[in-house]
Amino acid sequence: MTVAIYIPSDESSQEWRDRLARLLPEMTVQTFEEVTDPAAVHYAVVWKPPTGAIAGFANLRAVVSLGAGVDHVLEDRELPAHLPIIRTVGTDLTQRMREFVALQVLLHHRRLPEVLARQRAHVWEKLVTPPAPRRVVGVMGLGNIGAASAQALAGLGFDVRGWARSPHEIAGVTCFAGEDGLAPFLAGCEILVCLLPLTESTRAILNAALFAQLAPGAVVINLARGPHLVVADLLEALASGQLSGASLDVFETEPLPADDPLWDHPQIIVTPHVASFIDAETGSRLVAANIARFEAEGSVPDLADAGRGY
Amino acid sequence: MTVAIYIPSDESSQEWRDRLARLLPEMTVQTFEEVTDPAAVHYAVVWKPPTGAIAGFANLRAVVSLGAGVDHVLEDRELPAHLPIIRTVGTDLTQRMREFVALQVLLHHRRLPEVLARQRAHVWEKLVTPPAPRRVVGVMGLGNIGAASAQALAGLGFDVRGWARSPHEIAGVTCFAGEDGLAPFLAGCEILVCLLPLTESTRAILNAALFAQLAPGAVVINLARGPHLVVADLLEALASGQLSGASLDVFETEPLPADDPLWDHPQIIVTPHVASFIDAETGSRLVAANIARFEAEGSVPDLADAGRGY
Ligand SMILES: NC(=O)c1ccc[n+]([C@@H]2O[C@H](COP(=O)([O-])OP(=O)(O)OC[C@H]3O[C@@H](n4cnc5c(N)ncnc54)[C@H](OP(=O)(O)O)[C@@H]3O)[C@@H](O)[C@H]2O)c1
Ligand SMILES: NC(=O)c1ccc[n+]([C@@H]2O[C@H](COP(=O)([O-])OP(=O)(O)OC[C@H]3O[C@@H](n4cnc5c(N)ncnc54)[C@H](OP(=O)(O)O)[C@@H]3O)[C@@H](O)[C@H]2O)c1
Repeated sequence: MTVAIYIPSDESSQEWRDRLARLLPEMTVQTFEEVTDPAAVHYAVVWKPPTGAIAGFANLRAVVSLGAGVDHVLEDRELPAHLPIIRTVGTDLTQRMREFVALQVLLHHRRLPEVLARQRAHVWEKLVTPPAPRRVVGVMGLGNIGAASAQALAGLGFDVRGWARSPHEIAGVTCFAGEDGLAPFLAGCEILVCLLPLTESTRAILNAALFAQLAPGAVVINLARGPHLVVADLLEALASGQLSGASLDVFETEPLPADDPLWDHPQIIVTPHVASFIDAETGSRLVAANIARFEAEGSVPDLADAGRGY
Repeated sequence: MTVAIYIPSDESSQEWRDRLARLLPEMTVQTFEEVTDPAAVHYAVVWKPPTGAIAGFANLRAVVSLGAGVDHVLEDRELPAHLPIIRTVGTDLTQRMREFVALQVLLHHRRLPEVLARQRAHVWEKLVTPPAPRRVVGVMGLGNIGAASAQALAGLGFDVRGWARSPHEIAGVTCFAGEDGLAPFLAGCEILVCLLPLTESTRAILNAALFAQLAPGAVVINLARGPHLVVADLLEALASGQLSGASLDVFETEPLPADDPLWDHPQIIVTPHVASFIDAETGSRLVAANIARFEAEGSVPDLADAGRGY
């Protein structure tokens, strides 16, 4: 039985292969390139796999997504239907995301970009900001990552709201659900954090009509997927003042091309898809445990639902 | 009975005077300049009062410091001994400080200065950082502000230690006390936050000998008072790599002169004494309540101890 790994243009594929091989001694672990017997591949461990590659493994039992999102797997139009997709989540991924969410929200809350600009100009000027309990922050998506992030923000004292498809109850967070819940969730929201999965219902959700419902001068932080955001609408909202800033960690094309104008926009913080990540050491243990459990029980808790798209 | 106010070169003195006058209708509230009958002044509400000014009020019952620290009052060598000094603290001050501490710690933890430099250079490069539970953060001073900040950091998942004069117990924080506790507190500490009061025992405490005890490449964040830090030692430790970064909110001379080299140091974040503050609206209520209580009971809980200096 073979476990095949694909990570695009990443030297760490070898590290993942070697770690998984040690953790799953009874299986053969190979990179996609190394596979000589595709029929022996029972598990494909992937990040952004090339179209059709997975369909080439006729006896596949499950695909393992090297991340919380599965959009990069479902994008493959040749993906065999009904193939189970295992998400890789875990405390490190959740931990790093709540740190990054807290950092990005605090940074805009305390107007750090303007503070740093004053440092560059040698200007001693105190910018007054309200304390966090008087700042409304909204978190879109209350899954593993969104719920933990909303709780971290509540713990720091912010006035936090959350939005998901179904009703949630989270201590210190006012929760809204579904399409009907979106307008009341957005009204008065000053800092908006997107932690949704990318699906047909959430694609382009961060658009002009949504920005218009936020508090004037609001900030948008997209840490989910590039296609959640309509970049042209963001630029227009920043120009008009409806938005005052943004932090973007994810983009339609990644790496963001060096000549993309987003890099130089004075009101946008660009980070290279690092909001959260799983390192090979921790991640290989999660993946190995999920594969072993799937082999034994035919299922795992972290299974995506291809029907709903996440 | 008169309440006299002094805030240096700050238009908000009038706002404070008017707010206090409304809150203390049975008293006369004047700025120091407006006082015509010094003998009638029973309370002096001050920030950095000029030397000797307070001694001019012969019938003073207490000095109110417009902040948590009282060093700016005790600095006045002509201050009458045994004069009670009331500190102004409260939830807004504590709240804003824990936000700022969380922001500064997260910012260094996630290497934001390097991330922003890569944005300026249009370089897509992921910098790997450990999750917060593998990052040791030390908080010096566990008073109102230090304890709340240490707890906020623990809530975000950091491995947090605290240090004070006397033993403390704070959930999620390993506490050290006194001079003997300093070395074990510092050993292995990667991000150090100073929230001590400025006294004869804490002046120049952030010096070369202390930096040498931290983890190599540590970060120092001074949000307490300028004279806690030996600037020359900081610059040397940054040059040698013993420290990798610093955030400074307080300075020996404030405002920091426009030609001070600290403004341009690539590894130092300079902010204009804004880590925390009390706005006139909230602060005047705290001050009025303390004055009323002191009048009625002859004491208040937020009294400084001039003997120990804080
Ligand atoms: N930038 C990065 O470094 C990074 C790292 C990791 C993950 N991510 C992104 O974060 C996303 C979330 O991860 P997760 O593990 O928290 O996912 P998850 O556990 O699947 O949770 C998804 C959440 O979104 C909600 N949702 C889905 N469709 C919705 C819709 N149409 N309307 C409203 N709410 C909707 C779900 O609602 P229900 O609770 O009602 O189902 C759920 O609360 C991933 O998909 C990935 O795109 C980014
Ligand atoms: N940058 C800003 O915007 C800003 C704003 C507000 C305050 N501050 C600064 O923050 C400081 C702390 O405020 P606070 O309200 O938390 O003060 P606090 O309640 O008086 O607490 C002071 C803490 O420092 C400890 N300490 C004092 N001397 C010490 C020594 N020699 N060795 C070890 N620990 C010592 C005390 O120990 P014990 O608990 O054992 O007494 C106590 O835990 C203020 O004095 C001020 O300088 C700065």
